[in-house]
Amino acid sequence: MSLLVVGSVAFDGIESPYGKEERIIGGAATYFALSASYFTHVNLVGIVGDDFTAQDEQIFRGRKIDTTGLERASGKCFFWAGRYSENLNERVTLITELNVFAGFNPRLPAKYTDSKYVFLANIAPNLQGSVLHQVKRRPKVVALDTMNYWIERTLDDLKETLKHIDILVINDSETRQLSNEHNLLRAAKHIFKLGPSALVIKRGEYGALLVDKYGVFCVPAVPLEEPHDPTGAGDAFAGGFMGYLAGAGKHDDAHLRRAMVYGTVMGSFTVEEFGPRRLVRLKSKEIHARARHILKLSQFKL
Amino acid sequence: MSLLVVGSVAFDGIESPYGKEERIIGGAATYFALSASYFTHVNLVGIVGDDFTAQDEQIFRGRKIDTTGLERASGKCFFWAGRYSENLNERVTLITELNVFAGFNPRLPAKYTDSKYVFLANIAPNLQGSVLHQVKRRPKVVALDTMNYWIERTLDDLKETLKHIDILVINDSETRQLSNEHNLLRAAKHIFKLGPSALVIKRGEYGALLVDKYGVFCVPAVPLEEPHDPTGAGDAFAGGFMGYLAGAGKHDDAHLRRAMVYGTVMGSFTVEEFGPRRLVRLKSKEIHARARHILKLSQFKL
Repeated sequence: MSLLVVGSVAFDGIESPYGKEERIIGGAATYFALSASYFTHVNLVGIVGDDFTAQDEQIFRGRKIDTTGLERASGKCFFWAGRYSENLNERVTLITELNVFAGFNPRLPAKYTDSKYVFLANIAPNLQGSVLHQVKRRPKVVALDTMNYWIERTLDDLKETLKHIDILVINDSETRQLSNEHNLLRAAKHIFKLGPSALVIKRGEYGALLVDKYGVFCVPAVPLEEPHDPTGAGDAFAGGFMGYLAGAGKHDDAHLRRAMVYGTVMGSFTVEEFGPRRLVRLKSKEIHARARHILKLSQFKL
Repeated sequence: MSLLVVGSVAFDGIESPYGKEERIIGGAATYFALSASYFTHVNLVGIVGDDFTAQDEQIFRGRKIDTTGLERASGKCFFWAGRYSENLNERVTLITELNVFAGFNPRLPAKYTDSKYVFLANIAPNLQGSVLHQVKRRPKVVALDTMNYWIERTLDDLKETLKHIDILVINDSETRQLSNEHNLLRAAKHIFKLGPSALVIKRGEYGALLVDKYGVFCVPAVPLEEPHDPTGAGDAFAGGFMGYLAGAGKHDDAHLRRAMVYGTVMGSFTVEEFGPRRLVRLKSKEIHARARHILKLSQFKL
């Protein structure tokens, strides 16, 4: 079933100990859509400036990604630049230019309004809510990402939007900030009262946790000897997770667990190279091999 | 098969947001022995002062723990006091009094010298080495724990002892410090050149990693809603790990994986209450139930 994503399509400037890219295509919706497109058809809603050329848009061509919802505005694309520390576990933001993103008011093309799977990437919570209102029937699964910026500045809007979503996909520090609870199990219980019935906690090199009515599921991160650039890994994780669910059309415990694994697979490939470079040239065979690798990493018999 | 452990038997003063204990029995060898005794027979080598009463020693009675090797010296037991932060993820040491431990020169009772499984808990590397020299034949498995103190102060001694051990059981920061490598896979390769053929990395709330010739195995920590006191959890982990291997008498890939799981089980129980209180009243049924819980936490099918 087709999957709707709304979020940023941007250019990034990235510095890590492994190299430097002055300007490479990025944005949460970009990573999400590329990742999810290996599993299902993706409808993309976002905004780009007139510096986003036909050649840039090639990144979405030849994939199961519909860009009818990618609005063109006069001005420049959202631009972010950052520098990662020696060990890639910290980063400083050097530049954030909202540009056309500042005036983003997402509008769904008519053909997107019956989406059954929806992912609201990290944008202002009121915009996430407005996207959801434009979907005609209650989707089967709505998931949402957010960040400290919105938790601190627009908490009421965020709480309003959270009432209508199923799965919150955030990192551990955001989980703690939103719930005012350090303990992740207690944090999950708090968050369930806000609306979501499942919480996916991304923990970077420590893997990811799913907490829901079935209990807790832990998936390890894939240990990599040469990670190059963590940019977009969380969004690629979300893309693999939601893409797998939408492709399967089910979200029972077994499917949610596999979705966590495919999210981990897609996140792990993403960090292997700068920007979405590794993500755009994956083969189905590689994806399944890495999922089997995660099985081998974590399986045991009693 | 019987398992030899050498390390500290001590008293601890512990403060956490969940309470305070002025003086509770502790020490790495105590936690290790109690934990391992659920799986195999343990021979304990350590030193206590004359403040260690017959009643204190009751903690080892009625278990598969031989204390012939527990030396009595005139003076006081090793004493450590510390305070945990709000979230239990940081601690400050308030008091360290070596007392009789300062003059510890471990001597193995004759009946311990044919040990097949040996665990050298965190003490001076030259003492760890001297214990190993007293064992008559090369044991089947020798594992060792150490800490930043020894890595910084007695690196040459540590490297000498590491030549003779099979499994290094340390935490992630110690792994990075010993190898000068942040990346844990590269760190493991470095450590394998020093002697060990397997590395067990304890990551607290993030679980544990085993890296060896079979590859990597990740086991998640058991998510707990009400952890009370992390003291001794790493030693109880090591006790479950080595206890399981010694009890099984095998250390192939399947057994090493299960040993990681039982280590995790024992560590998770330990943090539930202050000191070794939870550890001393475990039932076999509880241990196996928690191992099945970890299976449920981490299992998936592709």
